[in-house]
Order: sequence, then structure tokens, then C-alpha cells
Amino acid sequence: MRHFSFSIAKQGKGLARAGVIHTPHGDIETPAFTPVATKATVKALTPEMLAGIGARVLITNAYHLYLSPGPDLIEEAGGVGAFMGWKGPTMTDSGGFQVFSLGEGFGKKLSKFMPEQASPEEGVAVFDEELATSHGKLAIVDDEGVSFTSHADGSLHRFTPERSIEIQHKLGADIIFAFDECTAPTLERDYQKEAMDRTHAWGKRSLVAHRQNLEKGPEQGLYGIVQGGRYADLREESARTLGAMDFDGYGIGGSFSKHDLIGILEKVNVILPEEKPRHLLGIGEPEDLFLGVAAGIDTFDCVLPTRNARNGTLYTKRGKINLENAKYARDFTPVDSECPCYTCTNFSKAYLSHLYRSKEMLAGILGTLHNTYFLVSLAKDIRQSIMDDQFGQFRDEFLKNYKA
Amino acid sequence: MRHFSFSIAKQGKGLARAGVIHTPHGDIETPAFTPVATKATVKALTPEMLAGIGARVLITNAYHLYLSPGPDLIEEAGGVGAFMGWKGPTMTDSGGFQVFSLGEGFGKKLSKFMPEQASPEEGVAVFDEELATSHGKLAIVDDEGVSFTSHADGSLHRFTPERSIEIQHKLGADIIFAFDECTAPTLERDYQKEAMDRTHAWGKRSLVAHRQNLEKGPEQGLYGIVQGGRYADLREESARTLGAMDFDGYGIGGSFSKHDLIGILEKVNVILPEEKPRHLLGIGEPEDLFLGVAAGIDTFDCVLPTRNARNGTLYTKRGKINLENAKYARDFTPVDSECPCYTCTNFSKAYLSHLYRSKEMLAGILGTLHNTYFLVSLAKDIRQSIMDDQFGQFRDEFLKNYKA
Repeated sequence: MRHFSFSIAKQGKGLARAGVIHTPHGDIETPAFTPVATKATVKALTPEMLAGIGARVLITNAYHLYLSPGPDLIEEAGGVGAFMGWKGPTMTDSGGFQVFSLGEGFGKKLSKFMPEQASPEEGVAVFDEELATSHGKLAIVDDEGVSFTSHADGSLHRFTPERSIEIQHKLGADIIFAFDECTAPTLERDYQKEAMDRTHAWGKRSLVAHRQNLEKGPEQGLYGIVQGGRYADLREESARTLGAMDFDGYGIGGSFSKHDLIGILEKVNVILPEEKPRHLLGIGEPEDLFLGVAAGIDTFDCVLPTRNARNGTLYTKRGKINLENAKYARDFTPVDSECPCYTCTNFSKAYLSHLYRSKEMLAGILGTLHNTYFLVSLAKDIRQSIMDDQFGQFRDEFLKNYKA
Repeated sequence: MRHFSFSIAKQGKGLARAGVIHTPHGDIETPAFTPVATKATVKALTPEMLAGIGARVLITNAYHLYLSPGPDLIEEAGGVGAFMGWKGPTMTDSGGFQVFSLGEGFGKKLSKFMPEQASPEEGVAVFDEELATSHGKLAIVDDEGVSFTSHADGSLHRFTPERSIEIQHKLGADIIFAFDECTAPTLERDYQKEAMDRTHAWGKRSLVAHRQNLEKGPEQGLYGIVQGGRYADLREESARTLGAMDFDGYGIGGSFSKHDLIGILEKVNVILPEEKPRHLLGIGEPEDLFLGVAAGIDTFDCVLPTRNARNGTLYTKRGKINLENAKYARDFTPVDSECPCYTCTNFSKAYLSHLYRSKEMLAGILGTLHNTYFLVSLAKDIRQSIMDDQFGQFRDEFLKNYKA
């Protein structure tokens, strides 16, 4: 069994770097874009298509897979990769973001309402349904973990750091994430600090739980998640605290604006241990890849390329275009004439426009294929430019033509 | 430019035969199953997937493509095959079935309400909107053609045999169909006879219109459509009348029960010219392929394999199974362990079941891939059995295991 490790192939100017993440299911050359397979499928693409466009790693979601089909079933299938027919490396997001985004607007005050008798034990539902209903929330946090109702059927569940790690061990991805509290950007500083401290405590517990279970299966890499909202000093504190713990890598999380986060990345990454890989959670449109890599990010995931594709918005070297725009109905040229993907080499904008207007499934398939290829290959091109000492030039050239 | 022609490779016992249809876009070995690409796409599959599973010919629909994106746009794209990125042969259904099925329940009496001043000229809307609305119909037939409202936007249109052929010339499929009146099975004999006579007159006009336009482009094969409802003597009359006209092949139409039609096929096919190919319109599940081939059918099309797939119903050598059934949730075996398709060699029933329950697009993609492979390869296997003088044995063996 191969162990998780990371090696830097080339340190570029500033924080930009090219590397290789070694995992039990193969190597990931970085920088890399990670297509999102929330429910063990990248929407609209087969694993064969994903391999064909050069994707190397997929990220699935522990929260969604925990609810259905369940970690035991996936463990029985041989892990999430085997379950979904994907032979390469996988990641699982810890589910923190999903749990908290379902309780959107939940916050400091609400957590105080947690019943006194709440038990932190895993699997024990301590959720106060009446309380939750009266506040219209789906999740309530306490220092031990979070209680939440399923978005699917309203059933009651509880995640703790230990439970999240146990679930992620059963899912068996190559890279897993510590359970964190992902805060809303609107919350005040005091709460961001409180949530960050909790995230650090949960990170430590995730690490302990992970080490206790390691002998059970293949070595999975565990990433800690840096939080701290939009406050640079909190982010730096988070990077210092987690950076001192022996994680295999780091995720940088937070459900707030791209603009806020990008500005903070460099500050965080100069603190995080240089020899560990860094993943930017949930952000990864073309312009973000350049900003992120320049600030020291190695891997990215983002649902926008696939979601945009289903809505008719496709990436080109000149920016995004929407195929439902009437001007494309008689345009017999490809989406991006320089793009070698299956969609661009075989179909015209007129045909894709017809498919989108007709709400045909093939629209989403061909659009998603192109957008995913675009991001995956852009990350590869960025990697090559770092290897060639041309990252700055490549970035300037790309961003000059690309209208975000 | 290659011309349309048909050759019989092997005459089996009775009416069963193996042949080759030669078209401008390549050869079609028969018997063959024709996947349905109504709006210039087989729902959920790329042309690459279709070629990969051995599909040789696709059937698109003149009615739908006339409404959107329109025959002029498709002509500009180089024909429907080029438009949709399909390099092999194509067929276009004339749209008769769609026009009439939209006026479902329309009938003899309604046609008498057609205004006296109705003009048969192409493109002139002579539709009596008030009359149609008062009867809740979308289509009204007269001896010259049919006036109908679009199912999509309620706009008024008129099809005549000449107009249908003109549209199908622009769409540019290798095999096109005469414009016919497709009757409801519930209508009485007198009306079936009247509609059949009209279909014969329209067949003749389609043939004249086709010949006048032939020099314009590649030689397309024109099929006449045998009608006559569930009445064997009318069907025989239709086969005699149309068989005497110089069509390149024949379609056998009618929107009534499979059982009725299958019983009539043999009677029709002993009359139709032996040297012309015969297409069974809209019927083609596994058991139908055997019954149809035994009765002299060469090609089939049917929406059920693709529609079933999107609803979770997949074909196996033992019959149909529905993956939403709870018993498949933990079944880690493939849909059909003998099937070499991409779906069966890479994914378990448990995974497909998860995809269907989660309403993921990949469910429809993998299901459609399997079902289409199943029908396409079954037709190929039937062909091989005819070549090997083993058709009867192959059929008996298959039907013994297959529960329809």
C-alpha cells in the first residue's frame, strides 16, 4: 500500500509551485483542478469522460454520501472510488460546509440554546427539534459537534469530529478533511473567533481519531481546514495553530466572497508548512486558478464549471459565453476554436444552442465536458508554465484575453 | 455520391432475411435497431457513445426539427447528420405521426368541419383556430394536407406531402418517409379506409415531389408508409397499392397495439416487393425484434429503450428490471453479467440504484447506454443467426430466458 505524501517538483517565483501528491490511488500533479462529484458522480459525465479529459482527482461529499447511500454500503463496495467506477485518487469534503450551510444564518446566539443535557456521543441524536423548528434552522452547533436534520427527509443526525473521520474512513477517499465549522461571512468578529477556536479543537480531535484508525485501511491523507472568516489576523492565527499540528495537508475554507478570500491566501500560505499541499475549498474559476496559484495554492475544487455548463454558460479563452443567447442560434463555429475537447471538435454553437433551448440532456453533457476540460487543462498549463519559469507571462497573457 | 440501394445478403427461412442498405453516409447491415434522436439527439448519449456501442443509423423527426431549429438552419449546417455530429446514416420520420398524435382523438367528423375555402398551398395557414379550439384539437386534416398548431408555442402551421418532402430534403437524411395519416386505433373501419386512401394519395404526391427535387442533393431513399389500422384486408390493400409505386423501401406505421400489428406484418410483407427494405415504425423492444424479423422486417426504431432507461428500467437477458426497486440498493453485481457494455463492465446495480434514487444525470446516461447497446447488439446477433441458419434456435433460446 502506498502512503500519502507530497513533493515539490519546482518552486516558482513567490509562492507559486509545481508538485506531486502521491496517494494510494495514484499521483496528482499540481496545480490541479478537482472536479466535484458531490454524490459520487460528477453531474453529466462518466468516469471514462473524466479520465479522457485528463482529470486526476475528484472530490465527493461526506455529508451527502453519509445520508445516501451511507458509509457502510460504500465501504462494502470497496470505497467511494470503486463504488463510482473511478480508478484515480479521490477526496471527501468533511461535510462541515454542507451541515452549516443548511443552517444558514445560524449563529452565536442559537448555539446557546443547545439543551444542557446534550450528549456529544457519536450517533446519539441530541437535536432539540422543537427548538430548531422554532428558529427555522437545520443545524445547531455546540462545542462537541453539530446536530442537524437531513435536507432530504428531515431525519435527525449528529456529526462530531470523530464521527466525521469515521465516516470518511469508510468512504475511503485518498484525501480527507477535518471536520470544521464553516461560518457565514455576515457574522461578527467575536463569533468568527469562537468558531475558529472550535475548528482548531475539532481539527486536533480529527487528527487523533484519524491516527487511531489508520491501521484499518490504506493510508489516507488528512487535511486540516484553515478558517477565520474575512479577518486576516484570525486567518493567520488559524494557519499558525493548525500548521503546528501534523496534518498531511491543509484546506482553506470559508463561505464568503472570492475577493475576501483571495486577499488572505498569501498571508495564510506563508505561515502554513511549505512541504504540505494546500487545497482551496470551493473556489476555482479560471481567474481564481491564477490568483490562487500565485498565492501558494496547489489544488482547487469548484461546482461552478459544472453548474454553469448545465445552465448554458461555457468558458472560452475570451471569457464566458451563454449558449442560450439568440446570437449563437446560427453560429456554426465551435465554442472555443482553440479548444481540442470532444465538444469543440465535433459540435457547433448552433447545435449546442439548439440542445440548450430544447432542454436536451446532451446539452449538459457536452457543456460539462467542455467546462471541466477547460479547468483541468488550464491547471495543467499553469503547472507547465511554472516548470518552464513562465508562470507570470502565461498568467498575464491569459488574463489579458479573458473577461471574467 | 453513392446512391441508395438495398441488397439481400441471405434469405433465411420464411420471411426472415439479412441484408445491407447502402446509403450516401454508409452501409447499414440489417436487421438493425435504429436509436431514436427525435430532436437531433439520442437523449443522454453522445454520438461517440452511439458509435462505440455499434449503432449504425439514427432516426430523427421532421416535425420537431421543422419547428426548431428549422430545416433551413439544418440545411445550412450540412444536413441533420452533420448538424448533430453523427457521421453515419440517418432517417427522418415524416412527422405524420406527431402531427396526428397531437390531435389525438381527432377523426372523421372533425375533418368535415374543415372550412370550404381551405387552401392546400404549402406554407399557407388555413387552420380554423376557433374551430380547433372549440374541439380541443391541435390538428385538422383535409384531403390536401393537415393544419396544426405547434405543441411548443401554439403557432399555426400546415403540412402537405410536398411540404414534408421539401422539409426532409433540407434535413438531408439518407432515408426519408412519405407523409402519411396515422390513425388512432379506436377509429372505426370506415375512417381507417378513408385515411388509408388519403395516405396512398399522399404517398404518390410524396414520390412525385421527391423525384422533382432529386437533382438538388445526394440521393435520399424515400419509403412509403403502409397503413390500414388493425384490419388485415386494409393492410393488404395498402401493401399492394404502395408496393406498386416505386418507393425505395417501406415503413409500416400505425399507432395501435403491438399485438395487432405484429399479427399483420407477415400478411403485409409477403405482398411488399421482396427487394425493398422494410422498416417497422416505433416498435422495437427485444421480443418485437424476433417477431418482426420472422415476419420480414429489416429495421426497427422505438423510443422505449431510451425512455425506459431514464425511468430506471433496464433490459437483461432475463427480462426487464427496475433499478429503483429496493432490492438492488445493496446488489454489487452488474445489471447483466453477460453484457460487455461500458455500464455493465464498470458499475454495480447498487451504484446505478443510488444514481436513480438521487436523480443524477449519470443514471440516465449509463442506463440509456446499456439499453441502446442491448437492442443494437441484439439486432446484430439476430442478423448473425440468420447468416448462420440459426435464427429459429437463437430466437427460441432467447425468448425462453427473456420475460417481457
